[in-house]
Amino acid sequence: MFAFSLEARSDGARAGRLTTPHGVVETPAFMPVGTAAAVKAVTWRDLEEAGAQIVLANTYHLMLRPGDALVRDLGGLHGFTAWRGPYLTDSGGYQVFSLANLRRLTEDGVQFQSHLDGSPHLLTPERSMEIQQNLGADIAMAFDECPPYPVPRLAVAEATARTTRWAERSRAAHRRPDQALFGIVQGGVHLDLREQSARSLVALGFPGHAIGGLSVGEPKAEMNAVLEHLDPILPADKPRYLMGVGTPEDILEAVARGVDMFDCVLPTRNARNGQLFTREGRLSIRNARYRADVRPPDPGCACYACRTTSRAYLRHLHLANEMSAATLMTIHNLAFYLDTLRLLGQSIRLGRFTAFRAEMLRQMAAAPRDEGPGPHPT
Amino acid sequence: MFAFSLEARSDGARAGRLTTPHGVVETPAFMPVGTAAAVKAVTWRDLEEAGAQIVLANTYHLMLRPGDALVRDLGGLHGFTAWRGPYLTDSGGYQVFSLANLRRLTEDGVQFQSHLDGSPHLLTPERSMEIQQNLGADIAMAFDECPPYPVPRLAVAEATARTTRWAERSRAAHRRPDQALFGIVQGGVHLDLREQSARSLVALGFPGHAIGGLSVGEPKAEMNAVLEHLDPILPADKPRYLMGVGTPEDILEAVARGVDMFDCVLPTRNARNGQLFTREGRLSIRNARYRADVRPPDPGCACYACRTTSRAYLRHLHLANEMSAATLMTIHNLAFYLDTLRLLGQSIRLGRFTAFRAEMLRQMAAAPRDEGPGPHPT
Repeated sequence: MFAFSLEARSDGARAGRLTTPHGVVETPAFMPVGTAAAVKAVTWRDLEEAGAQIVLANTYHLMLRPGDALVRDLGGLHGFTAWRGPYLTDSGGYQVFSLANLRRLTEDGVQFQSHLDGSPHLLTPERSMEIQQNLGADIAMAFDECPPYPVPRLAVAEATARTTRWAERSRAAHRRPDQALFGIVQGGVHLDLREQSARSLVALGFPGHAIGGLSVGEPKAEMNAVLEHLDPILPADKPRYLMGVGTPEDILEAVARGVDMFDCVLPTRNARNGQLFTREGRLSIRNARYRADVRPPDPGCACYACRTTSRAYLRHLHLANEMSAATLMTIHNLAFYLDTLRLLGQSIRLGRFTAFRAEMLRQMAAAPRDEGPGPHPT
Repeated sequence: MFAFSLEARSDGARAGRLTTPHGVVETPAFMPVGTAAAVKAVTWRDLEEAGAQIVLANTYHLMLRPGDALVRDLGGLHGFTAWRGPYLTDSGGYQVFSLANLRRLTEDGVQFQSHLDGSPHLLTPERSMEIQQNLGADIAMAFDECPPYPVPRLAVAEATARTTRWAERSRAAHRRPDQALFGIVQGGVHLDLREQSARSLVALGFPGHAIGGLSVGEPKAEMNAVLEHLDPILPADKPRYLMGVGTPEDILEAVARGVDMFDCVLPTRNARNGQLFTREGRLSIRNARYRADVRPPDPGCACYACRTTSRAYLRHLHLANEMSAATLMTIHNLAFYLDTLRLLGQSIRLGRFTAFRAEMLRQMAAAPRDEGPGPHPT
């Protein structure tokens, strides 16, 4: 029901196949973020057409609204929504620390107040497992503590040790045979803590490993050093998921260091703010230069927005606060991310990842300065 | 290039075919409102799938943003947007009175300040024609003055006479051979003024006639009396368009009185507020009764939203402020309106309009009280 096969390696990068109860995911894979059991500004049909293979949903948001018991009663995420492919749910740990009010952390778990209505809640490893089993995603996450950056090493060490204890409790509380439970490696930017965390989790025998607590403000070099250090420690025959990352550049560097799965709000959130990821660099649609620009957002892209929309029209929709601006730009940005990951996987399967990466970096450097780096070769 | 053929009559109702440069419209027809060259919350593909045949765009909004000269330079509305079917633009008259600030009305036209940035503008019959020719819709409207309700009869009489003089100036200023110009009948609820207005316009030889200044607060019986009075005065071989109307019930009554075309923001605006038009009555998706309701919004509907979405999921999306709630409910409400008009036309072509209307009225009366009247038979 759940299986991972590593199919190709090219230098440090890996290409594989993740089989889940709701379908196969070719890795490296990007997971669009569907926080409230919906990817913002688009419908499920748009995700299918953009080539999404798996979608992430947020435990924290869904436990508060509409409530995990209701989702369970309506057939889990697959019964509740129109997404027929695999789902992954996060543990709720990261978001309870970043969104909820009046948190109190104990060995048992985290007490907090809902950011929606102030109602009190307790999230523990056992409760996180209950919620995620109610939601019924194909992949669930062990409950973890994700410390902010920077904090003293001692605080990171304590959070890391607690994450391991919570991973054991998560595993013990997890019952659904049709759901894979991944452990989450913590340890901040401290390589010895990361190693300790990874070795403890590997000993617990999880079918996949997530790397949490990165992209929280640390320098890129620190993130890459952590990934390099973890690569030989994490079992090669199990998938690795880098949580919450990132830009196309970040993803490229992480793939080069053996990561298989990603999620990030960047393509969807930036779309709503008028920023497009294109093969020619990042494009801010508000820019006056696009006022009469009849070119599609990204001439190299085949998505619905690029097939039917000019930059001038998209700029008009955005400035007129039309919701369809967000819809069209989300469709494009997701297509761009998904296309990029597909091309990365292809280059790995063809044994030419290094050349592809160099070309992608070259194009990024050549992208118009005022629009930020461009992300990948055509 | 532009033609109308009346194909069937059933009691007072008419079914016809309107041929335009961008395609055929079967009447009676409902035109979704695309104020800013976009129907709010949906993409053009959604409109095609819902069966829209013609879309209305607003002269007032587009002259201000992005500006009609820009739309002209980008190929008119058909070059600017991805809608390939016919467009109709209004004259700007109604909206300059309802939306703009600091209006000053003279025989020449209306001076006003933009509701967007306070910039000063002058809208005259000649300028309205220039804008509408720049926008390049298949059907344009003569510039009119639409008085509010209620106002003294004298004010209505003056506005009506001015509308006729402006209609002459509009016709004189209109040049595009690929665009049909409709005159607009005014006259408030005064049958003699309406008759006077209609006879003057008919004498000017417009290829179609709009009925403006209704559904502005007057009792329904007054509106129906005006329509009945105008029916024998307006030429039978030219299309009649009732502007800004209305509920499914209003449309049914107007079709019974010989009207062919309609536009209204009701299906799109109400969708964004969480109100669905269904074959079982109007349904407010916020209602707690839909919390765990697994039925589609409207079990008798084949739209994308009804094929893939439960009321419970739609309610969740709406309460979570997800844009896709507006998208899905707009898709459904437009499908409902377009299906209703299609069924009305079918009943006319089959010579059974009266029976259809009676059945529709019966179903409306039987619809759940607390959700308002239901609109049409299955």
